[in-house]
Amino acid sequence: MEEVRLIEVKEEILADNNQVAAGVRDQLRNKKTLLVNLMSSPGSGKTSLILRTVEGLKQGLKIGVIEADIDSKVDAEKVAASGIPAIQLRTGGFCHLDATMVTQGIDALAENDLDLIIIENVGNLVCPAEFDTGAHKNVMILSVPEGDDKPLKYPLMFSICNVLLINKIDYLSLSDFDMAALRKRVLALNPGIKIIEVSCKTGAGIDNWIAWLGQEVESFRSGQ
Amino acid sequence: MEEVRLIEVKEEILADNNQVAAGVRDQLRNKKTLLVNLMSSPGSGKTSLILRTVEGLKQGLKIGVIEADIDSKVDAEKVAASGIPAIQLRTGGFCHLDATMVTQGIDALAENDLDLIIIENVGNLVCPAEFDTGAHKNVMILSVPEGDDKPLKYPLMFSICNVLLINKIDYLSLSDFDMAALRKRVLALNPGIKIIEVSCKTGAGIDNWIAWLGQEVESFRSGQ
Repeated sequence: MEEVRLIEVKEEILADNNQVAAGVRDQLRNKKTLLVNLMSSPGSGKTSLILRTVEGLKQGLKIGVIEADIDSKVDAEKVAASGIPAIQLRTGGFCHLDATMVTQGIDALAENDLDLIIIENVGNLVCPAEFDTGAHKNVMILSVPEGDDKPLKYPLMFSICNVLLINKIDYLSLSDFDMAALRKRVLALNPGIKIIEVSCKTGAGIDNWIAWLGQEVESFRSGQ
Repeated sequence: MEEVRLIEVKEEILADNNQVAAGVRDQLRNKKTLLVNLMSSPGSGKTSLILRTVEGLKQGLKIGVIEADIDSKVDAEKVAASGIPAIQLRTGGFCHLDATMVTQGIDALAENDLDLIIIENVGNLVCPAEFDTGAHKNVMILSVPEGDDKPLKYPLMFSICNVLLINKIDYLSLSDFDMAALRKRVLALNPGIKIIEVSCKTGAGIDNWIAWLGQEVESFRSGQ
């Protein structure tokens, strides 16, 4: 009984959310602002990746960041210290961002006329995958210490992303992480996904990510 | 509007769940079976810890394991290979276990007359902290690569646990993880929590965990 009721409510909420998300996507497309939703487990390196991304792209592009956390604003402070506008959304116990919450962040950044907004979602491989934020591109990070079996356990997240960044490759020497097995599992779920190996600590592979993202922003600005 | 409705439903579900959880706890106390709920982010080492625990305690105790995953049964297969009864619950998209789901696992293990049942919850630092599973003890793992700032971001999880295992201490040499800062943050949230540093890979510190858990089972069996 209880479980059935929960599912019904969830479906209703998801339907409402999809409508808001579609509106967010259209609105930002008209403004030529690319919205990227970044997801991962806690501690996989979302904030570190954003700092590397800002460093790589801020000369040519106007970038803003929406940070989500259940509590604290340490991430937004780190991003703001790099000189770009950052909004912290406190989800107050919510395990994901939905499109309505994202709208609040976008409104708060509206005066900046941005080329790119990056959302750092709540650290969670489950719930954020279910809620469309209105982003044009979904990107996830899997870090090497989490293991190569994660696509078997959290298939939805791997299925809905355009890019998978494999972070902390500097840990590979201490780990039994099987990169070939990981790639095979991911591509079985999502043949079109782009996989990029990086280390936010050493900077390895970051150029490949910056090149992909810069290209996406350019395509978006030129209306392709 | 939408957000308020969601919260109301959540509270109702949580109240129902608390009632079921209290029943589970009483039922297992009468049977002198200790129920331990193990939680962490994806890839922090829950299954590895369970395998180490079984290895350390299976000579003296009858142990069963309830594994939860959104998909796949790889974890239950690993545990079953160590020679103890293991049940895999597929949550089918749910981001946490609730007490009703746990009841299904306990019923499936009922014939074994167990001293200890370990639940491996869904890999998630958010939602599992909100749902009482009926466990007598809550235990979490934080692994070194996740970083020392996690208590600031996921405070509820750190607040509700009896034990925090800091796993993957073999990665400390590659990491800027600040153990003193972590301990301070955790103890500010939860002064009574027991913190144990371990490496499931090398076996370091596992004796301390086994000693704590063995003692808890003994206290429970003797009715203290």
